[in-house]
Amino acid sequence: MKVALIMGSKSDYSKVEPAILLLKSFNVDVSVRCFSAHRTPNELSEFVKECNNDGTDVIIGAAGMAAALPGVIASLTVLPVIGLPISGSVLDGMDAFLSIAQMPPGIPVATVAINGSKNAAYLALEILAIKYSDIKEKLLQEREQMRLAVLKANEEIR
Amino acid sequence: MKVALIMGSKSDYSKVEPAILLLKSFNVDVSVRCFSAHRTPNELSEFVKECNNDGTDVIIGAAGMAAALPGVIASLTVLPVIGLPISGSVLDGMDAFLSIAQMPPGIPVATVAINGSKNAAYLALEILAIKYSDIKEKLLQEREQMRLAVLKANEEIR
Amino acid sequence: MKVALIMGSKSDYSKVEPAILLLKSFNVDVSVRCFSAHRTPNELSEFVKECNNDGTDVIIGAAGMAAALPGVIASLTVLPVIGLPISGSVLDGMDAFLSIAQMPPGIPVATVAINGSKNAAYLALEILAIKYSDIKEKLLQEREQMRLAVLKANEEIR
Amino acid sequence: MKVALIMGSKSDYSKVEPAILLLKSFNVDVSVRCFSAHRTPNELSEFVKECNNDGTDVIIGAAGMAAALPGVIASLTVLPVIGLPISGSVLDGMDAFLSIAQMPPGIPVATVAINGSKNAAYLALEILAIKYSDIKEKLLQEREQMRLAVLKANEEIR
Amino acid sequence: MKVALIMGSKSDYSKVEPAILLLKSFNVDVSVRCFSAHRTPNELSEFVKECNNDGTDVIIGAAGMAAALPGVIASLTVLPVIGLPISGSVLDGMDAFLSIAQMPPGIPVATVAINGSKNAAYLALEILAIKYSDIKEKLLQEREQMRLAVLKANEEIR
Amino acid sequence: MKVALIMGSKSDYSKVEPAILLLKSFNVDVSVRCFSAHRTPNELSEFVKECNNDGTDVIIGAAGMAAALPGVIASLTVLPVIGLPISGSVLDGMDAFLSIAQMPPGIPVATVAINGSKNAAYLALEILAIKYSDIKEKLLQEREQMRLAVLKANEEIR
Amino acid sequence: MKVALIMGSKSDYSKVEPAILLLKSFNVDVSVRCFSAHRTPNELSEFVKECNNDGTDVIIGAAGMAAALPGVIASLTVLPVIGLPISGSVLDGMDAFLSIAQMPPGIPVATVAINGSKNAAYLALEILAIKYSDIKEKLLQEREQMRLAVLKANEEIR
Amino acid sequence: MKVALIMGSKSDYSKVEPAILLLKSFNVDVSVRCFSAHRTPNELSEFVKECNNDGTDVIIGAAGMAAALPGVIASLTVLPVIGLPISGSVLDGMDAFLSIAQMPPGIPVATVAINGSKNAAYLALEILAIKYSDIKEKLLQEREQMRLAVLKANEEIR
Repeated sequence: MKVALIMGSKSDYSKVEPAILLLKSFNVDVSVRCFSAHRTPNELSEFVKECNNDGTDVIIGAAGMAAALPGVIASLTVLPVIGLPISGSVLDGMDAFLSIAQMPPGIPVATVAINGSKNAAYLALEILAIKYSDIKEKLLQEREQMRLAVLKANEEIR
Repeated sequence: MKVALIMGSKSDYSKVEPAILLLKSFNVDVSVRCFSAHRTPNELSEFVKECNNDGTDVIIGAAGMAAALPGVIASLTVLPVIGLPISGSVLDGMDAFLSIAQMPPGIPVATVAINGSKNAAYLALEILAIKYSDIKEKLLQEREQMRLAVLKANEEIR
Repeated sequence: MKVALIMGSKSDYSKVEPAILLLKSFNVDVSVRCFSAHRTPNELSEFVKECNNDGTDVIIGAAGMAAALPGVIASLTVLPVIGLPISGSVLDGMDAFLSIAQMPPGIPVATVAINGSKNAAYLALEILAIKYSDIKEKLLQEREQMRLAVLKANEEIR
Repeated sequence: MKVALIMGSKSDYSKVEPAILLLKSFNVDVSVRCFSAHRTPNELSEFVKECNNDGTDVIIGAAGMAAALPGVIASLTVLPVIGLPISGSVLDGMDAFLSIAQMPPGIPVATVAINGSKNAAYLALEILAIKYSDIKEKLLQEREQMRLAVLKANEEIR
Repeated sequence: MKVALIMGSKSDYSKVEPAILLLKSFNVDVSVRCFSAHRTPNELSEFVKECNNDGTDVIIGAAGMAAALPGVIASLTVLPVIGLPISGSVLDGMDAFLSIAQMPPGIPVATVAINGSKNAAYLALEILAIKYSDIKEKLLQEREQMRLAVLKANEEIR
Repeated sequence: MKVALIMGSKSDYSKVEPAILLLKSFNVDVSVRCFSAHRTPNELSEFVKECNNDGTDVIIGAAGMAAALPGVIASLTVLPVIGLPISGSVLDGMDAFLSIAQMPPGIPVATVAINGSKNAAYLALEILAIKYSDIKEKLLQEREQMRLAVLKANEEIR
Repeated sequence: MKVALIMGSKSDYSKVEPAILLLKSFNVDVSVRCFSAHRTPNELSEFVKECNNDGTDVIIGAAGMAAALPGVIASLTVLPVIGLPISGSVLDGMDAFLSIAQMPPGIPVATVAINGSKNAAYLALEILAIKYSDIKEKLLQEREQMRLAVLKANEEIR
Repeated sequence: MKVALIMGSKSDYSKVEPAILLLKSFNVDVSVRCFSAHRTPNELSEFVKECNNDGTDVIIGAAGMAAALPGVIASLTVLPVIGLPISGSVLDGMDAFLSIAQMPPGIPVATVAINGSKNAAYLALEILAIKYSDIKEKLLQEREQMRLAVLKANEEIR
């Protein structure tokens, strides 16, 4: 039960951290890496090949601007790849968003909201859950917690 | 090994069909439905609850304009939900794209390209592949076919 | 003479509050709720059904990002639903704006400006006014106050 | 039970017609007019003042490009004004959409989707329905028809 | 030699002030007013009619959001109307920009950059200069000053 | 009473022609030229200098894509320069629109709607009218014609 | 004197062809290839490494949608890489445009206009010209031809 | 081995400075100038002509808003021109970006990311490197440094 999370730049760390913490709170083994599609294409490629063989189930790629990272990962694996657009430029992540989502037929990237690191992790967990039933249980409990949190907010606001 | 594919309107059918054909070519059991989040909220809800209990692994939701469908599906399940934005309005699907991807924390939708029905199916297959190894094999073969098709195009163009 | 105002998240409260205060200043009975279309679909549905039967005249739905809330409300009632897009993401509310306004035929949402909570309330009041003539009188007085405020500003600026 | 529908240009007629037909099918008295906010400001103003006194309940303003029409109508009345953006320029109605929705506090316009003439009419009907209960009944029946139409499509597609 | 400058809201004053100062530095008689197209349509209309008869040569209209003001002014006069879009909303003035520029055939508004108050004034001065030759002389001198300022900056930067 | 109209490319001719015809119908002397800011900078510069000395009152610059033409004209004259954005690329003229309107302080360009050739001409006429009173008369008559045309449309539509 | 031109898909050929013809008309040796960054990452990588050693001076990468191709090429070489965005999706190339231009520091891509294949070739030629003086001569002659073509158009239009 | 860098306004200096420092660190002779396409067209033209004759290899033009500068430079030379869009307005540089990249056929500008001053310099260096082999060596070393920096970040993050 293993997820690899690759960020394109160290500066993305704070925006990506919630995903790491969330995955760990589900006892998922997380391999966190920083590889740039453009500056370390070989190391990125090697790591993705490793993921293909070490039992990794899902890969998350987080990147800003041209954000080629998730697509390049996807080109090297048939594992599900989740793309997390980061708002790292003056264009507020709209550039990364389009770069990540508008993939050509055959090489999909599962795109989540700009800076949506929690949803990148939740999506990874939902994917894991089709195989690992305890994750599914825990996700259902979290949903219930979310529900209760909204209901509590509702009580406060009424 | 089962995927549910829900489209929001009958008029989306031609844009969604490639996903159905692709999934079937992988021998995936596909439940194709037409439910509108806004016109048939109860039937949609019942069907998603059915999916939660009938062994469905992944749900694809295809919709245009406000495109609430994939998000509403996601609110009713912890199965992975893939959102396929359809270019059904004068805004060329940009409205559906944002509506589908910009989900709040906790309820992810895996968004693919506008009209990217093939990638919706490939993403579903990659998710299935973490559980069903024969799908993985077939995906790797398809990748090889894609590679060869590009190389053939390359030979023609040179 | 009753308006229901539902916000999708507690964090929207400060942006929504001017609507609540304005409605109350017109002696309208306001039911303020916090329900998420995605996290509490059942409670939301129950509350809207309540509104259908308790004499509520208008429902305001305020939400950011994918902003399915107003549309989901609209799918459950034929009461007029006002959609208030909130700028809760890096996209400055443009995502919520399109998600709320681009509804499919048959299920309208009356969309106001991004963060336009006062106009959500004024629109609700104008709708009430077609039935309750004292609201109409008060709206006309407010218009006169607005007019005088501009004329006062004009005097200061000349 | 009366709705006024004003279009800014004769060329908008075909896009606006579905709204007229829908309102008439509900036996609503519809005053259809063509007045330009910019070319016939006086006649527009006179007509809106007439609406204020002849029992008109709701006014729909349809316009493309700068689309000042709905806002100008709203400035002359406290009746609910519905703004229908028309895709009359190379910008596909995005200009009209923003012009109509981004109204200043105090003068709301209830904006519907670009070219969403049916929803402009449905919204008018929902507003009328808070006062005229037979409209409400008919709206509920239409919703049921829409639901059945989707279910029929669903049967065909399965 | 007279310019009328109308702003839609007192809150636009600081963004509009550079235009006023610039016009005054050219000894142009400036009538500064605050009228809202939506809150004070009658007073606005009266003032524009006054401008038509009191020797005003050019009218500047400054407004944010729906920004109907410049277009409404233009509908009431054949004097040249300059539209100054103000960044008064979360959309950074893009809404005002489109509302002001996308006028229908026959009723032009001369649109300048978002928050481009100086250029609104310079454009007014260039228009005046086709009639008043001393303005032309002064504009040529200002151009020379601008040129020298750039050359000075160039020397500093080299 | 002279207007220069410069288009950046021969392919813009059909979109620009309505401006030429309109100006001629007002008996304005129109110098029509095709000069590219990027391909014929010297000839463009010479022609603008000619305009500065031959009694030209207003210059219209029409261009698509990067659309530097109107701004370059404006840099060479203090005559009022009207910029007409042409939808000559896949971006539907939005590129030209921003390039033309977003001029730096001191060098204004009076921007009209995308493909708004008639309004480029009307704006030129309104500017001429502050100097030539017969143009003003004719403009007022045209406005009256426009008014009557709308009223006729209104009669047809009622 | 050698340019490599890589397109991401055979379907881009017709949009890319003008670049090939133009380069050949300058007697430049052009290696035309079709490699997809996502479907043939290895072959692409090998070909770029070949370019690094076979005297290639400039590489042009043409791609639509996510358009990772030019950036991936740039990551594998310090040769100048020109990115040509192709309008291959419903978003009219805006997706490719941002993906190609918004590269991270250190790995530049020289981006030209959407579908601007001629300019991709001209830019390549200008780069070659800093090393090969006969290219420079020919470019100057072409500029002269362009100038004369505009002047001819000008004569026709006058 | 000479690069000219022209900025359109002194206020762009801080955003442009990284390019200057980078070029100097490669021992490139950099002529830094501040010329406005609109305020100093003659001086700009003279300087570009100088560049054509003094051994300058590449010209970088940095500008915000309408950003005509790079295109005007390109119109006066067949040297490679790099356009650097600066985020100098409320539109975050999107205006400059389109103005710089959407050049007409024949007059290319090599556009880099908004505020991408380092990439403007790197692109200039890559162009120089096709002629000056020591630059190539140094670029390869820098790439290696970038690679090592990412790998170091990777170690820290793991």
